[in-house]
Amino acid sequence: MKKIVLVPDSFKGTMTSAEVCGIMGAAVRAVLPEAEVVALPVADGGEGSAAAFLSALGGSREELTVTGPDGEPVAAFFGLLPDGTAVIEMAAAAGLPLTARRDPERATTFGVGELMRRAAERGARRLILCLGGSATNDGGCGAAAACGVKFLGRGGEEFVPVGGTLRDIASVDLSGLCPALREISVVAMCDIDNPLCGPCGAAAVFGPQKGADAAMTARLDAGLEHLAGILRRDLGREVLTLPGGGAAGGMGAGAAAFFGAELKMGIETVLDTVDFEHRLAGADLVLTGEGRLDSQSLRGKVVAGVARRAARKGVPTIAVVGDVGEGAEAVYGLGVAGVFTINRLAVPYEQARLRAREDLRWTVENLLRCILTFQK
Amino acid sequence: MKKIVLVPDSFKGTMTSAEVCGIMGAAVRAVLPEAEVVALPVADGGEGSAAAFLSALGGSREELTVTGPDGEPVAAFFGLLPDGTAVIEMAAAAGLPLTARRDPERATTFGVGELMRRAAERGARRLILCLGGSATNDGGCGAAAACGVKFLGRGGEEFVPVGGTLRDIASVDLSGLCPALREISVVAMCDIDNPLCGPCGAAAVFGPQKGADAAMTARLDAGLEHLAGILRRDLGREVLTLPGGGAAGGMGAGAAAFFGAELKMGIETVLDTVDFEHRLAGADLVLTGEGRLDSQSLRGKVVAGVARRAARKGVPTIAVVGDVGEGAEAVYGLGVAGVFTINRLAVPYEQARLRAREDLRWTVENLLRCILTFQK
Repeated sequence: MKKIVLVPDSFKGTMTSAEVCGIMGAAVRAVLPEAEVVALPVADGGEGSAAAFLSALGGSREELTVTGPDGEPVAAFFGLLPDGTAVIEMAAAAGLPLTARRDPERATTFGVGELMRRAAERGARRLILCLGGSATNDGGCGAAAACGVKFLGRGGEEFVPVGGTLRDIASVDLSGLCPALREISVVAMCDIDNPLCGPCGAAAVFGPQKGADAAMTARLDAGLEHLAGILRRDLGREVLTLPGGGAAGGMGAGAAAFFGAELKMGIETVLDTVDFEHRLAGADLVLTGEGRLDSQSLRGKVVAGVARRAARKGVPTIAVVGDVGEGAEAVYGLGVAGVFTINRLAVPYEQARLRAREDLRWTVENLLRCILTFQK
Repeated sequence: MKKIVLVPDSFKGTMTSAEVCGIMGAAVRAVLPEAEVVALPVADGGEGSAAAFLSALGGSREELTVTGPDGEPVAAFFGLLPDGTAVIEMAAAAGLPLTARRDPERATTFGVGELMRRAAERGARRLILCLGGSATNDGGCGAAAACGVKFLGRGGEEFVPVGGTLRDIASVDLSGLCPALREISVVAMCDIDNPLCGPCGAAAVFGPQKGADAAMTARLDAGLEHLAGILRRDLGREVLTLPGGGAAGGMGAGAAAFFGAELKMGIETVLDTVDFEHRLAGADLVLTGEGRLDSQSLRGKVVAGVARRAARKGVPTIAVVGDVGEGAEAVYGLGVAGVFTINRLAVPYEQARLRAREDLRWTVENLLRCILTFQK
């Protein structure tokens, strides 16, 4: 064991991925003081992604006040990586925890657009937009408006559409889009492939958790469908069939239509950005992990994405996780050599989370000792 | 991995050691269908020891009705192994769960003596007495009486002493001891080295859990000390300084004085009896385990005993356990390559125990897969 690569996700609600990396690294040094350790804290594209990128690659955290989901000012930020990539978490400006009223008919992504615009003006050459965790259902119209896109109502008046007023859009005009943003390639990271509309769409699936009742959900869905028609007619963009178009209240579709964004699985974008294959060269082991591994972890999540790529390079991956749910076995097929829980005691989560740091370190040390015994 | 030896303890309250062996064996066969599996379910000398011996070595379970701790008849048993060793669990005839009144001043080991006598009469050539779990504090006088030892009071009357009447013993006479028992070597298995009397003695440490209050504890301790004086004077046996003399309400001391028993750590006796070193030959891995591993597990418990012996033969041991408590790290020094918990989910014990079989199998399969990956 000469080189070990650490690529954990966060343990949601317990440890950030940077913390997990720190603890895993300490455990490796305790057992293998001579080993080279590469720490790449990552995130699956949701909350914590910018911090994970900054921790893995360096760069600066840019803080600024933007418009929150309720229209009030909120303190937000984005990450600016050394290679000129800006990482914007949609949740930082339009996240569900930022809204007091939980009303997806009124919540706006305007602040997300302000972050994008500022990043472009700061010279970012590429923009990673982390979808997910949003309070909104505006199809990204708020963000587009903040960046200069004009939405006109039936009377010709300009307005900033929200979820409840999408149906009032008569036309959209991209000509005012901030010039700095036209030069930039945008990647929107999302872990779901829900379409914009319909029974699997943004409103139907995610509306209720944002505060929509059945009637509002139907109105929101109709609004998104109306928007899709406008985008088709005025911009020549077909977003109704776009996988992931329904992510983040339709921000997936909006990012594609307004900013030409490519929608990608979070972990693939993350691993590309941290130059995973290059950092992996010569490694004997990849340690990854997340709070809970189950059949859902197979799709677009950190453990599966990491293992698949490491396997291609012939490096075994071990996942150290909080809980191991049903269906976790399937990760073996992706190149995971083993899945180990940190639950040293049979105690409920409320207690387990308080012990998680100590238990994680213990588990990784124990695992490495064991592997060394059988490698001899 | 051509040969794997399974030597687990029970997971107390959840799975017997035979069950654990069965599940571990199924997991090994799923991952390594060609491997030879040697299953040696064991126990640390307490409850379940006879069943574990029978399961590991074959033999018969002899059932009979004897006198329970309260003087009422109870259905008890002993194991008769193919080599002529009888295994008697003290708890089967004098166990705490068998008493309704929880009164160590009145509880008797008489039934334990009846089991011993019957085993001797059935032709047993060696007797393993599993101490522990008793409701009694009679220094083994009840058992001795059942085997023909005579206890006389100050008026010369014969009686069967109990915890509360030890101080009434004026003399003891071994001449009536059942002849079949004189021929037999007796090993008393215990996992503690508490002395008979004093602050670390049988009454002080274990009296309270048997129902004694402070005053009764003091009386019980005085009774045991009086007994020790009688044994010294009449039998020439010094039991006050005997490590383990305080096991099972002084049964450790009584077994030594009345039956010439050798007091041994449970797991050492068990491993000798199952011919562990011989069964270990050519093994690549020993899998052991218990319900909880912590600093207490180091002394006389299954995991530590197994690992120590396996290490001497150069075979690595892995412990698969329920909980991993504080101080478990010390087992590495004994030859344990790794300690793995079966707690796949952070849930309280009441829920975890219902999942234990499935979780155990999953954990062992996962572990073996992982080891195979790194052995290549």
